[in-house]
Amino acid sequence: MDKVITISREFGSGGRELGVKLADKLGIPFYDKELISMAADDINIAEEAFRHYDEHIVVYDPLDRQYYHAFSDVYQIPMSDQIFVAQSNVIRRLASHGPCIIVGRCADMILTDSLNLFIYAKMKDRIKRMLELESEAESDGKEMERRIREVDRKRKEYYQYYTGNTWGRAQNYHLCLDSGPVGVDGCLKAVLAYLGEEDKI
Amino acid sequence: MDKVITISREFGSGGRELGVKLADKLGIPFYDKELISMAADDINIAEEAFRHYDEHIVVYDPLDRQYYHAFSDVYQIPMSDQIFVAQSNVIRRLASHGPCIIVGRCADMILTDSLNLFIYAKMKDRIKRMLELESEAESDGKEMERRIREVDRKRKEYYQYYTGNTWGRAQNYHLCLDSGPVGVDGCLKAVLAYLGEEDKI
Repeated sequence: MDKVITISREFGSGGRELGVKLADKLGIPFYDKELISMAADDINIAEEAFRHYDEHIVVYDPLDRQYYHAFSDVYQIPMSDQIFVAQSNVIRRLASHGPCIIVGRCADMILTDSLNLFIYAKMKDRIKRMLELESEAESDGKEMERRIREVDRKRKEYYQYYTGNTWGRAQNYHLCLDSGPVGVDGCLKAVLAYLGEEDKI
Repeated sequence: MDKVITISREFGSGGRELGVKLADKLGIPFYDKELISMAADDINIAEEAFRHYDEHIVVYDPLDRQYYHAFSDVYQIPMSDQIFVAQSNVIRRLASHGPCIIVGRCADMILTDSLNLFIYAKMKDRIKRMLELESEAESDGKEMERRIREVDRKRKEYYQYYTGNTWGRAQNYHLCLDSGPVGVDGCLKAVLAYLGEEDKI
């Protein structure tokens, strides 16, 4: 496999876990939240600001002012756009170094020759998976569902805002997998087989 | 694999070929156009009429009158709806007999416990595949593209009319595959691996 692999994912579907395992099988680097600090380093903006804007668009937000260079006389580009551009540059730079796996952040649309995966699952399967992963006693199903819907909404808005494409439209990706019936490990096998790496299953 | 597998497909992407090969690997029956004659037998409508209405909706069509029982005093259900119902009954009957593969005809939405695949490919890949398959000398790329768009449009309308769902929305299916980069055989390997049948690759 000589391509960069991007992973778009519904929250709770196991996209990150799939990425980590796939990177391990293929022996290539993996990037998810690492992209935040790399981009923050690049443009000298506090990592805290990056985390605030990561994968969601903020149209009216008081924080936006706080992070602006208040007295600059150049035109002020909204912080979320600055961060998108910085992350895009990091993604292109990483891709130029060779095969790797990049999770989220519109990487499928930023790169022109990547192999793009989309991982999702039914709500009940995602709630179950997240509750198993989190040991906090206060987590309940209803609260988890609210959190999943909120993160999904932000990712979807972010994707559609910066790419103009429909999030979750199968034809935007090369392989889309429901992790519900077969788990992350079942998806991993399918991705390896699709890549012609079935000897690594 | 103890489930019925349904295959939705963009025209020219190799969905039928994938179904035939998958049925062969799994040793289960395969149904595509066979559904037409089975349903026609069921309700005693000419197979020719079935072919005319197969996988597309016809809202205003002079043929509709021709196939109506002209002097019946019962309320006349449009032919395309009669055919949809007859095909749905055949699909449910086949599924009740055990695992099989069913191509198209909204089977993913008619059945409640099937495993649903969606196969697609970029237009250029589908034109190339179809031109290679068809030996007719008069086939050219432009004409093939027009034909592909026409069949896709009908299938999409039909699916959306009878299911109320968006055709090609990844989350409607368990596994969606672009046959372009890896061909039908690459998709076959991925499906087998997803099903936990990697020993059959």
